Amino acid sequence: MKTEEEFRDFILNGHQQYIPHVTIDCAIFGYYNQQLKLLLIKPRNINNWALPGGYIKRSEKLIEAADRTVKERTGIENLYLHQFKTFGGPDRIQFDKFDKAKWQEITGQQSWEGNWLFNPTVSIGYYAITDFSRSELQIDISTEECAWFDIDDIPALEYDHDEIVREALHSMRLHLFHYPIGINMLPEKFTLSEIHALYETLLGKKLDISNFPKKLIALNILRKLDEKRYIGAHRSPYLYSFNKQKYNLALKEGLVLS
Amino acid sequence: MKTEEEFRDFILNGHQQYIPHVTIDCAIFGYYNQQLKLLLIKPRNINNWALPGGYIKRSEKLIEAADRTVKERTGIENLYLHQFKTFGGPDRIQFDKFDKAKWQEITGQQSWEGNWLFNPTVSIGYYAITDFSRSELQIDISTEECAWFDIDDIPALEYDHDEIVREALHSMRLHLFHYPIGINMLPEKFTLSEIHALYETLLGKKLDISNFPKKLIALNILRKLDEKRYIGAHRSPYLYSFNKQKYNLALKEGLVLS
Repeated sequence: MKTEEEFRDFILNGHQQYIPHVTIDCAIFGYYNQQLKLLLIKPRNINNWALPGGYIKRSEKLIEAADRTVKERTGIENLYLHQFKTFGGPDRIQFDKFDKAKWQEITGQQSWEGNWLFNPTVSIGYYAITDFSRSELQIDISTEECAWFDIDDIPALEYDHDEIVREALHSMRLHLFHYPIGINMLPEKFTLSEIHALYETLLGKKLDISNFPKKLIALNILRKLDEKRYIGAHRSPYLYSFNKQKYNLALKEGLVLS
Repeated sequence: MKTEEEFRDFILNGHQQYIPHVTIDCAIFGYYNQQLKLLLIKPRNINNWALPGGYIKRSEKLIEAADRTVKERTGIENLYLHQFKTFGGPDRIQFDKFDKAKWQEITGQQSWEGNWLFNPTVSIGYYAITDFSRSELQIDISTEECAWFDIDDIPALEYDHDEIVREALHSMRLHLFHYPIGINMLPEKFTLSEIHALYETLLGKKLDISNFPKKLIALNILRKLDEKRYIGAHRSPYLYSFNKQKYNLALKEGLVLS
């Protein structure tokens, strides 16, 4: 959505193009240099921060809707989005919190009675992990602000998004045991310390031993190069890179690490 | 739904009580004595077998809707239902396959144009595992038949339910690495062979060693009793039981087995 007119048309007639009662919400985690962040937006006319999300077009697959929503609202593209849980129930959204004056100003209508947006809605949760240092944030007319927040410093969110973030984090951490991770978050060639730090940061705790990288090596997903990084005297760790074919296969089929 | 009148009222006016565009489908796996089965129903006026499923009441939590749907359509109660994935997209359901004559007979209307059921729908998938030897199947007016099918002998299913079953099986098998299982599927006291066989059957493959039970013992979820089962001379394996408190905690928090 780019113009005021498009925004107004979405509110009044969006149900012709979009499926009512179903939204998508995306928890986008950002990793860089041992820091974990979460991407939040301030939706237009809402006072709190929230996850980027939106409705599904009648012509779209769910994953296409998730991709488009993230791109439109934050500018971020090419995420590996992973569906983790769908949220619903009678208490999800308190519609009476919305601002009647704003509604009248935008739509020219007295009340939102009968409007397709003011309905019970289930929301399909997706998460992704990306390198926040390389993301270029942009927003569209439905978003006022968009920013990265430290995972330990997230404000109270709108709707039931606190719960969605909790569940996203829980799912992401369990999935680390079943899917490879690291492409797009580590340089092309990296040391074992770097991938170890990635896992520790995502899990939010210290790992006793470098279990994950070792298993990835055993499964040929991680490959030792005949090349070292020179850090200092007596400090030249070997470099590693991903076998992309094995990596992608493991993303599809799942694997067991622990 | 018990009467023809209720069934007709659901079709014509169900959107007053239920949320349109969103359904639930349940893949209920049954285990008994090293056999794995799947529960299927023949919905009324549909020629193929399908998963039990239905709509969500506006007053219900998602899990309550899943529980109620399974109970109404199959008679099975008290399942531990686990949400695993939501399905959608423009090709999910081919409405033109429905029988116009049947529609006219039931509703007295010429066409289903504008009816709340003939809309794009996302479906939230739940799976459960139960002991099929103890289930008592019953059906309501919206179901013609209900039966257990061997997991290796499932007919081609209605809608996109083949895909839903594939994904349910995949998720259930990954979840075995993160959640304890066995209560309601094993006797109160059981041998290590019995729980080992449960895992092998659910995973659909031989396990080299009794890894799962060992980890469960290490985590105090499985407890060795001071009691043996007498099978024959030189064959008296120890019995085990679950520590229900630790078991339930692990269900909530997740754990790592492999």
